Amino acid sequence: MYYIGLDVGGTTFKAGIVTEDGRIVHKDAMPTGIERPYQEIIADMAALCKKVAADAGIAMSEIKSIGVGVPGLFDNRTGMIPFCTNLGWHDIPFVAEMKKHLDTPVFGDNDATVAGLAESVAGVSAGIKDCVFLTLGTGVGGGIIIDGKPYSGAHGCGSEIGHMMIRMGGELCTCGNYGCFERYASATAIIREARKAVAEHPESSMMAACGGDPEKINAKIVIDAAKAGDETAKTVFDGYVYGLAVGIINIINMIDPEVIVLGGGVSAAGEFLLNAVREAVKPMVFFKTMPYARIELAQLGNDAGIIGAAMLGR
Amino acid sequence: MYYIGLDVGGTTFKAGIVTEDGRIVHKDAMPTGIERPYQEIIADMAALCKKVAADAGIAMSEIKSIGVGVPGLFDNRTGMIPFCTNLGWHDIPFVAEMKKHLDTPVFGDNDATVAGLAESVAGVSAGIKDCVFLTLGTGVGGGIIIDGKPYSGAHGCGSEIGHMMIRMGGELCTCGNYGCFERYASATAIIREARKAVAEHPESSMMAACGGDPEKINAKIVIDAAKAGDETAKTVFDGYVYGLAVGIINIINMIDPEVIVLGGGVSAAGEFLLNAVREAVKPMVFFKTMPYARIELAQLGNDAGIIGAAMLGR
Repeated sequence: MYYIGLDVGGTTFKAGIVTEDGRIVHKDAMPTGIERPYQEIIADMAALCKKVAADAGIAMSEIKSIGVGVPGLFDNRTGMIPFCTNLGWHDIPFVAEMKKHLDTPVFGDNDATVAGLAESVAGVSAGIKDCVFLTLGTGVGGGIIIDGKPYSGAHGCGSEIGHMMIRMGGELCTCGNYGCFERYASATAIIREARKAVAEHPESSMMAACGGDPEKINAKIVIDAAKAGDETAKTVFDGYVYGLAVGIINIINMIDPEVIVLGGGVSAAGEFLLNAVREAVKPMVFFKTMPYARIELAQLGNDAGIIGAAMLGR
Repeated sequence: MYYIGLDVGGTTFKAGIVTEDGRIVHKDAMPTGIERPYQEIIADMAALCKKVAADAGIAMSEIKSIGVGVPGLFDNRTGMIPFCTNLGWHDIPFVAEMKKHLDTPVFGDNDATVAGLAESVAGVSAGIKDCVFLTLGTGVGGGIIIDGKPYSGAHGCGSEIGHMMIRMGGELCTCGNYGCFERYASATAIIREARKAVAEHPESSMMAACGGDPEKINAKIVIDAAKAGDETAKTVFDGYVYGLAVGIINIINMIDPEVIVLGGGVSAAGEFLLNAVREAVKPMVFFKTMPYARIELAQLGNDAGIIGAAMLGR
């Protein structure tokens, strides 16, 4: 038997045929076209599921289930998508629409949760029962795996780790609260602080790297400059790592997972980030002599969305 | 069949015979005597278990299991207590010692976790599968119940919700970190802020209530003065409620439980606290149109420790 994973984004959605052990056999993509009615978009998703199966020479009767990862909420009890902001979706009867085109069982979850599940099946946390996944991108997404299963809480609204407040009264967040984790641990945070820093330190190598236009600073410019020893960039990077470490300590103190996986754009900084985060976390651990979560880099990259979504029905 | 619950504190420990549905049949207590070797203390605990059974006319063969709630960590895989600061215990072979005196299976967990379990079996969150319990006392203890079972994480160190940092760089905590939740949501926090406030506002009614000695201010004095309309006390109380609400929002955004239960000394403020907290939480909820955790007051009071510990073996 096989599974199909659907990874839904605001620009494109991808579908892939996945084996029981989380390996992608074949995948394909289509533009989302978010200006269209949801019925059309979901019809295209169903069509892409059928296409990947056909192209891989696999009958739909051999597909055990279809899973979808959405940048929003998914309620498996009702088959509804209560919120999916990137697509402008609100209370969309996703499963009912899919069922108009397909007989296969359909499940769904948040995209960060799904990526965490993928790493727990076929990635860096494979075989680990309790695991937390963080996507460090424009915002910070969170996925919680407890006892090998995605955990989304009593109302499907949990694992919004990016909106854990770590600095009461701090930076205003898009959610309306102040001091959310993602204001300190996202690529957006690095960029914001780097722009402030180059205004005070125009001698920083980051200025040359962005062609003299601080609006063009991105996370990679800051991290590369920090790696190369630029003092201003190093200060920005250290501040970023501290904020990330505070959030990780909160996860350790609340959930105490076996592994915390760092994914998303910022995690491309690799060992440089990983070593700095591990060093920053260590002195803040509560029970100094007890073992605590290993911190690791995600392994599956962009495929995590398809693999994790597929594994929802496992 | 019956269960025995042991509630261990630094001054006394209590044991009670508990029914399958979480009702105490009989209970008794003994001084802990923490200056003694752990072997003696644990021998007394085993003796008290036998005594409550005998006094209730119940044979030890009718006791299915003994559960213990400790103000520290308990590792059920090894039967060890890695840390129990109030008793000065470190790496104590608790189950092995109990087994020298008793044949009954022995389980254990953190006291806040156990109190949360008690409320989930026989208290305000009875029958609720996902629940978080907060003890608002000298510090802030946390208990997480997921799928009806106590959740303590991969290394038994989870649910330390009091040490979730909500104000990066804020008040220094006893754990060595800055800005922990318990620095803002404990009785200690109310008292600290009230002392600062009366220094600036000696006209506050709190000054008379403490006999002119700010060292004698306690949480009840502050809350009573706030209830009575004292402006200074109200400011302190509102600040306290905001910190508590920030932590509760973090719990909602991460764990999304069905119910959050407030226990411990400060919860004696009752509806006055409950209504203020509910009001403060509401505007900070992330998914405004989705249901979120009910916030409730604990119902079992001091019995929660015995009942919850007993229910560990259920």
